[in-house]
Order: sequence, then structure tokens, then C-alpha cells
Amino acid sequence: MTGHDSPIAPGFLRVRLCVAYDGRRFQGWQSQAEGEAVQDHLERAVARLLGFRVVVQGAGRTDAGVHALGQVAHMDVPPGPVPWEKWKPALNAFLPVEVRVLSVRRVSARFHARFSARGKEYVYRIWNDTFLHPLEVGRAWHLPGTMDLNLLEQGARCLAGTHDFGGFAANRGTPVENTVRTVDRIVVRRRGALVVLNFRGDGFLYRMVRLMTGSLMRCALGRLPLEWLGEILEGGGRVKTSFSAPADGLYLKRVLY
Amino acid sequence: MTGHDSPIAPGFLRVRLCVAYDGRRFQGWQSQAEGEAVQDHLERAVARLLGFRVVVQGAGRTDAGVHALGQVAHMDVPPGPVPWEKWKPALNAFLPVEVRVLSVRRVSARFHARFSARGKEYVYRIWNDTFLHPLEVGRAWHLPGTMDLNLLEQGARCLAGTHDFGGFAANRGTPVENTVRTVDRIVVRRRGALVVLNFRGDGFLYRMVRLMTGSLMRCALGRLPLEWLGEILEGGGRVKTSFSAPADGLYLKRVLY
Repeated sequence: MTGHDSPIAPGFLRVRLCVAYDGRRFQGWQSQAEGEAVQDHLERAVARLLGFRVVVQGAGRTDAGVHALGQVAHMDVPPGPVPWEKWKPALNAFLPVEVRVLSVRRVSARFHARFSARGKEYVYRIWNDTFLHPLEVGRAWHLPGTMDLNLLEQGARCLAGTHDFGGFAANRGTPVENTVRTVDRIVVRRRGALVVLNFRGDGFLYRMVRLMTGSLMRCALGRLPLEWLGEILEGGGRVKTSFSAPADGLYLKRVLY
Repeated sequence: MTGHDSPIAPGFLRVRLCVAYDGRRFQGWQSQAEGEAVQDHLERAVARLLGFRVVVQGAGRTDAGVHALGQVAHMDVPPGPVPWEKWKPALNAFLPVEVRVLSVRRVSARFHARFSARGKEYVYRIWNDTFLHPLEVGRAWHLPGTMDLNLLEQGARCLAGTHDFGGFAANRGTPVENTVRTVDRIVVRRRGALVVLNFRGDGFLYRMVRLMTGSLMRCALGRLPLEWLGEILEGGGRVKTSFSAPADGLYLKRVLY
């Protein structure tokens, strides 16, 4: 079901879903044996409506604890059992409150949530103060210490662009052949204790946003020089950073098509 | 310990605390038999530092599920065992992550968290869309339906000012003698699905913000005319509204001294 062609079953129609979730509640996006991934909950909700199970193919996996404001997925369904305007309320009625389908619309059979994606936007939230605000528990990375915003912005400019990001990727199953990606922009904003990083790029390797964030923070806190970021980029995967920011602060904001 | 004079024990010093919490985790502010109120957690943390229990007197109670961004409390402690600069980190080390002491400072023995308060500011958050966003669970009131912002603003202007708010109060133990209060302002803002009400006043009766919000929403949704708000105000407690907004959306923002 994840091939580039992804043929649609005869008589079935392709549907695009936009989904938001609070990552703390789930074992990530990707279906798990325990059935507590977001995909599992969606596939069960669909099965209750159709009477049989179909695959809900996401644009990308998010790890356990990672949130989504605009994850995108597609699925193929028969035209009959559920009228178009009923899909959204019906799915939400069968889903836990921590995941919500924001929109459902019919798309061409050529649309593929993963392979049609031209890029993604992620937000990473950091709470830079001695203590984590109680309303930020599970929603931001608590990072005390004196952060140099200038260094952070310089580091962000260093990482933006087209590079071999192999050094900013964790291993997961089969190795990715091509680790060259383009990060269009990394925008840094600070408001009080809250530091927000906004990443947009044509694609991100496994753990890439968390590894970029964790590494940028090593520099922003003055623990490592900015040159170190350049060395990892130039290493093309032979040197890897191990400074990963936690899942709590990461949000998949939108998928670009 | 809650008398207007609130004498201080000889040799003890009065300390003012500013506290934030996620209300979902606690049985409200006020100490409970089960020991799961915010006050209970604070008093236990203080007792671990001092070796004996002292009362942590809050500026006002918040119900179970109600959040605080800037609750204020005071307590009397001996000058010896904990140095001033250590109180904040030491208390936070013994508290659950859903409650945090934001500041600790020494105040005059005349300061009383409750009786010195000149006013309070509350925020009420409403999610006005068909479905509640998953990241707003427990943090906003989910209110679907078409909301008329003009009616809401007119209703807010009607409630602001000095009135007998007896009709916007729930009963709790001993009746309050004087139910006249001044609400300086009720500011309404809308951004997308999120509607935020900001209340500032010299004091609020039990459940008053939730009853005002719930009643304003009856008008904003067109279920009751604005004149009905005026009738409740004029009734001076003989007619009571029963439309209470849930705890989830309510935040004690600050206490004014």
C-alpha cells in the first residue's frame, strides 16, 4: 500500500484526511502491535464505519509523544456506506478526544499522502527558564540555562539550505539512500521563556528535526562551537550528532503538496 | 489563620508565593481530606523543608479543574532552616510538575494573600468550533454553535460595572453578606475558533466568572435575550442563573494588590 503507484481498488475512491493529535496519548503515528498508535485508532474508527479495515496512509511517521497540528493521510473507501459530509463527524465520534480529524475531502487517485508531499513544516517549542511552566508539561522541552539567541540564529542559518543531512539522522530499519535534503528556512522566535523554532523543508530524515534542535541548543548554550554544526554537515553521515531534543516539544504543523 | 488580623508567630517571617498550576491534576486549591488539592501539595512540600506543617493561605479558592497562571499565597516560616534563595527550587523539587512556585519573596506581616487583595484577573477560554482541538482538551470549553460576537460584547458591557452580582453566585457554605462587586472590565477577543474573555474586578463571588461566562454564552448563541442578563443583575440574588461554564476554560491570571 506504500508503493509509488499505490493502485486504488476498483470502485473505491481516495480520501484525504487532515488530522491533529496530542502525542502524549499515543505510541506515535505508525501502527503498533499494541494498537495504541494514531494510525491504529484511525483504522479502527474507519473499520467501525465500513465494516472492514482499510489502511490509513500517513504523510510521515511521528514518534511517540510528538504532536500534530496538521498531519495528512489518505485512504481508499467505497462510495456507498458513509456520505461525504458524514465522514468527519463519524470518525471523530469513534476517536479518543486527543485525536481529531480536521477535514476530509475526496482527492484524485494520483494523490498519495506520503509520495505527493513536496515538503513539511515542523514547530519545536522550548521553555528556557529554571522551571517548566505547569501548562507546558509534555508540550515543550524544558531547557534551563543561558541561551544565546544570536548563536542560535547563526546556527539556524548554518543548517538551512541544501545539505547532506546524514549526520542529523537516526537509524531506523533500512538505511535511506539519499540523505540530501533542502531546509528552506529555520525561523527562531522568543517570547519570554518560550523559544519557538519553525522548520520548513522538502523532507526530513528520521529524527532530523529533533537532532537539529538538540544540536542547535548545544551551541546556543555555549557548550559546543558553531563550527561543530558545519563539521557534521560536511561529514555527510560519517559523523553523527547524538543530541536529540525530546518528543514533547515537536509539532508536525503542516504537510505541503 | 484566616482572620483579618492574621497574627504572625513570634520570630516567624511572612513569605509571599506566586503559584501556577494545571487544574486537571488537582482537587482545586483548597485543602481536601484526600490531600490532592494544590494547597495540600504545597503544605506537604513546606513541611518536608521545615519539619512541621504551616498553613499556606491562598488569595482565593479555585475549583477542581480550574487553572492558575498567578495564584498568590502567603505563609509564615522561621528564618533559619531554608535560605531565601533556596525556597523556590526546594519547593519545586518536592511538588508535582503540574504545580510550580514562580516566585517567593518576603513581605511585611501586614500582607495577607486573601484580605490584602484589591482585585483579581481571570481568563476564560472557549473553543467555538464543531470539534474541540485535541491540544485544547481540559484547557478550554468546547462550545459548538454560531456565536454572535456583537451580542457577546454587548452582554459583556452589560455585566461590567458595579452591581449586586448575587444572581451570578453559587451557594457555598455560609452565605456572603454583601454581593455587590465591581467588574472593571470584560474584554472579548476572538482568533479563529478560540474566544477569550478577560475579566478584571475587585472581587468575584463563588463561581461568578463561570456563571457570567455561561450566561453570556446563552446570549451569544441566541438562546436567551440580552435583557435576561439585566434581569438577573436587577434581581440581586433573588433570581439566579444556573448556566455555569465548565472548569476547563477558567484561569486565575493574577491577583492585584
